[in-house]
Order: sequence, then C-alpha cells, then structure tokens
Amino acid sequence: MEETQKENLKNSELRQDLVTGEWMVVSAIRGKRPDEFAQKEPLIDSNTDACLFCDPEKSKQEKDVLIYETADGDWSLRVFPNKFPAFARPKGGAVRHQEEGPYFWMDAIGYHEVIVTRDHWKHIGRMEPLAVAELLDAFQSRYIDLMNKKSVNYIDIFHNHGPSAGASIPHPHSQLMAVPVVSPFVKAELDGAEVYYRQNKHCVFCAMIAWEQENGKRIVFENDDFVVYCPFASRADFEMCLAPKKHKPYFERITDEEKVAAGEALHEAIRRLSDKLNDPDLNFFIHTSPCDGQDYPHFHWHIEIVPKLNVWAGFEISTGIDIITISPEDAAEFLRNL
Amino acid sequence: MEETQKENLKNSELRQDLVTGEWMVVSAIRGKRPDEFAQKEPLIDSNTDACLFCDPEKSKQEKDVLIYETADGDWSLRVFPNKFPAFARPKGGAVRHQEEGPYFWMDAIGYHEVIVTRDHWKHIGRMEPLAVAELLDAFQSRYIDLMNKKSVNYIDIFHNHGPSAGASIPHPHSQLMAVPVVSPFVKAELDGAEVYYRQNKHCVFCAMIAWEQENGKRIVFENDDFVVYCPFASRADFEMCLAPKKHKPYFERITDEEKVAAGEALHEAIRRLSDKLNDPDLNFFIHTSPCDGQDYPHFHWHIEIVPKLNVWAGFEISTGIDIITISPEDAAEFLRNL
Repeated sequence: MEETQKENLKNSELRQDLVTGEWMVVSAIRGKRPDEFAQKEPLIDSNTDACLFCDPEKSKQEKDVLIYETADGDWSLRVFPNKFPAFARPKGGAVRHQEEGPYFWMDAIGYHEVIVTRDHWKHIGRMEPLAVAELLDAFQSRYIDLMNKKSVNYIDIFHNHGPSAGASIPHPHSQLMAVPVVSPFVKAELDGAEVYYRQNKHCVFCAMIAWEQENGKRIVFENDDFVVYCPFASRADFEMCLAPKKHKPYFERITDEEKVAAGEALHEAIRRLSDKLNDPDLNFFIHTSPCDGQDYPHFHWHIEIVPKLNVWAGFEISTGIDIITISPEDAAEFLRNL
Repeated sequence: MEETQKENLKNSELRQDLVTGEWMVVSAIRGKRPDEFAQKEPLIDSNTDACLFCDPEKSKQEKDVLIYETADGDWSLRVFPNKFPAFARPKGGAVRHQEEGPYFWMDAIGYHEVIVTRDHWKHIGRMEPLAVAELLDAFQSRYIDLMNKKSVNYIDIFHNHGPSAGASIPHPHSQLMAVPVVSPFVKAELDGAEVYYRQNKHCVFCAMIAWEQENGKRIVFENDDFVVYCPFASRADFEMCLAPKKHKPYFERITDEEKVAAGEALHEAIRRLSDKLNDPDLNFFIHTSPCDGQDYPHFHWHIEIVPKLNVWAGFEISTGIDIITISPEDAAEFLRNL
C-alpha cells in the first residue's frame, strides 16, 4: 500500500474470492479517471537486427520442437527449448526426494519451452485474432505432447509482456513450463472448486460466469463460446479473466472452433488494455487441471490477464491480501466501451 | 522467469518450505558473483523541504497517536493515522458480511497508521541499533493498543523502502494495518506449524533455527537472543528471516532486553544489504500470531526481510512457485562476511 494518494478514497471494500476464500481490498481513489492508470513510459522496442527471436537459427536457439510454416516458405510460429531453463530436461530415472537436515528438496526436472510468433512488432493485441487462435493451437499441441511425460504433473503456460512483467526480450513470446509439482495457486482453486461443488452441486466458475452475464457490469467482451470479465475479487487493477462459457475442466481438450473464439477473446482483451492504457506491461497465463493422473471434473479452465500497474508493497507481500485502486466494475466499463 | 540469462545455469533445485509445504526453485546462475545482484540505480532522496514526514504538522498529517520526545524538545519517533487509509476507522457497529449474487464482501474497517523516525537520511541500516529497538518498542505499543479492538483480528506491521517496494515517500517510515481478516500467508504458516507440532512434538521454527545454527551456512548474523538467516526455501534473492532463538509465539510480548537484541539484528541485516548491494529497495514485515481471540502456542514470530531484486513474472504469478537466482547459502555467505 502506497501512502501518497492525492485524492480522497472512497469507502474501501474487502471482497472474498469465491473460489479460494481469500480476501482482497478495493480501495478506489475518488475522482481518478481510468485513463489516468495508463502506463507512463511506453515500451521501447529494440531494433530487430539484434533480436534473438526474429531469427532463432542465427541466435543459435535450440532445435524447434514445433514449427508452423507458411505457404511462402516462411514460418508463423515456432517452439523451442528455453536455452536457460529453470527446469532441466530429465536424464532418465525418477526424481528423488532428498533431505538436508529437516528440509526436503529435489532436482528441478521438467521442460521449459519458448513459443515465438513471427512478427517482432505484433503483440497479441495487434495480431489478427486467427493468429492468436494459432498460438492457442500451439499451446495445446505442446501440452498434449508433454502431459504424460514422467515427472510432469503440472504444465504452466504463460506470457510476459514488457520488462516489469519479466520479458527481457521484446519480441512477443510465450513460455511453457512442465513441472513435477502442482502449482499452489491452482491447487487452491481446485480445492475451492471441489468444496463449492460438494456444497452447491454445480461449478463455482459456472456460477460466477452466470452471475456476470446476468449482471453485466463486469463484462468486458463476449462471443458465443467465451467471456472476458473483470473478477469481483481482482488482485490487480484492470485484471481480466477469460473463460469458456460451458463447463470445461481441461484446456488441452479445446476444439478448433473454441480456439477461434478464445483467440478472438484474448486478442480483444489485450487490444483494449493496450489501446486504452498505453500498452501496459502484463502477464497472462492459463489455469487448467493438473496432468498428475487425477481427474478434476469440477475445475473450469481459464486464462488470467494481469496488467502490471500495481506495486506489490509490504502489506501485500506480508499478508497475501492484495489492494487494488480501481474497482473491477469501473475497470470493466472502461475496457468494455470502445 | 526471464529468459535471457547470459550464463549457464547450475542444476536447479526444487525446495520445499518446511512450514507451508510450498515449493520454490533455486535456479542459480553459474559464475554470477553476489555483488552483481546490486541494485543498479541508487535511491535518489528528495529534498527534505518538501518532505511530508520531516514536519508532520506542516504537512497536515493527522494527530499523533504516539510520540517519543527527546530531551531537547524534539521528537525521535511519531505515529499517526495514514491520511489515505486502505482500511477506514470503524464508526461503530459490527462489520456486516454483505452479498452480491454469489459473492461476499464487507466494509474494509480497521486501522492504518504510519510510524515515522526522525531523520530523513537514516534508514534502518544507518540508524543506531538502539533507535531500531525504539522503533520495535513503538510497534509493540501500537500493537497492544489495537489488538483488542472490535473488528481487529490481525495486525500487520511492515516497512517499504524504495519506490519498487512501494515507498513513494523516501523519508523512512513503517506502517501498521489492523484488519478484520487473518492474513492468508500467516494462516498458511499457522496451519503448517500446527501440523508439524502434532507430528513432531516441537515447533517447526525452533527445528529450523537449531539446524541453521548447527550447520551455519545460511546464518548471516546472531546475538544472544536473535538469529538472522537466509531461509532454505527463500522466495526472493537475498531474503532473510530474523527470529527469536527461544520459542515465542507473540511479538507483542517482546521484552525490553529482546527489543535491544532484535533492534541490533534488524539493523545488521539491513546494513549488510545496503552496504553490499547498493541500498536495494526492500520490504520487511512481522509475522506474528493473530489477535483473533485464539491461542497459537505453536507459532514462532519472526521478521521477514525481502529485497526487491527479482521481477515476479508470469510463472511466479501464475503458480505461486517463486524462482530465485542466487542460492540462500551463497547469499548468506556474502552477507555474513563484512
């Protein structure tokens, strides 16, 4: 929490995340217009000559594990192992739990890949929606290839845009990390979804989506298959959630038709952030069921889109209670209207 | 996870937090010296004439709730309500849970105070250790005054140093937020400590401290009553934990003698970060038992000191699995040796 807000605050609200039970604070600043949240310094793109991803062969990236070629012999998308992986590829043998005094650790074994689209200058908000559908197709293809590997229990697919979001290479790219442990954040959502289902006999995400559609005030965009809304208990200013309207636990089962619709929705979400808030740094990522051999019929996969406009300060880091300064309703209204 | 690390990586390790059970990754960069992690741009202090905290009366801060005066009629420390609180003071009546469709929310009621030390130029690493003890005394005093207030169930005391850590006013100051909900991060530690106690019949923090002292490689500083070490499962580069050596669940019961020892240890921890890493932005905060009317005999209060040298990118935000790039052992060795 920063302490130099110039304007008076509206009454703050504590809001509970319906899935995880966690709380966050809406501490909106009275009189601050949504466009005043715009990123102040626009991204400066490097020149393309030095770009490591414009010509992966020249920059000696590892061999592609997937490439989509175009009719004219160029490529539109390629996937290769990250040169400096946080999780190293297994060399055979099971991962062993090891001890040091009272502690446990294990080798960080897994797969860490980079998914690169062709055009240095076209981030997802500038691409054709169909190119975003192709990106989702590549995510699915890599997911399916890795999900049954030994020592892979969760696959995280994410995208860093801009330096404060962790992207040190400006060329648009996503990453995939297939890892032996289930994400604690996804575990909290799985557990919450399970408890909610037992109590209510329906999916918690379906309940939220139904309410958001009925109510409308937090909807940013929708098409036949997908909806984009600012979550009631957003953890960052202008956060959005992109979810299938129908109950779908597993991202990897997305159909071609759904990829087109999800690609349009993801493009629309990021285009609006980019156009209206001066191309802010952001992360987005898929939350889907683990691939650990269990079934998760009560989960509902989705994409979370998190602009990097907030500073996580002492209170947030200490407690895990995030504070946002624009209400999700105001954020959605601003992003909805073109 | 950024993807342009110039050097090869050592083998990565997944390490488990012994208290919460969560995992993090040590993905150390081979050949990178600890001093290369230094903050690149040193803090530029504003001029003191315009400082809102050098002369709180002039800048029309709210009335002090605590002031420590000096023999010469000046003050050494003062505490006043935050002008722009994230949690508003209660106006009477209990906090009511309210509903919107499937969601729950409530008014964010509580206390949000600022604790200011006198000297604009002296952060905690530059103060006299006894002045840090006085700061801890003020934390305790305010804690005790607020802990039994209606609607207060947790009190978070934290410090933001530098803009990327959320401090928009450079004058050294801490903050206190007394809130109606228990911090989820502290809840995870409480639950973990309880489970560990049931299984092992002793405190998990005591077990870690005993191992760290026996082993020595992650110790940064210790005196008779307190120890500072880099946690085995650190979630940020150069993170430190400052804990009482004896089992103590409740910060607010700290004795005068312990305040002197803890003040010295906190000063030493921050002085070392500041001297060796070019005064990095950082947060520190107290994790202590909630004041919700329950007893927490198995908890062990401590201070976490978290430099802001890492960017939380898509993987960390998506999964909650943090990646650090210097091992806690190397970080501790670097900070230990003056």
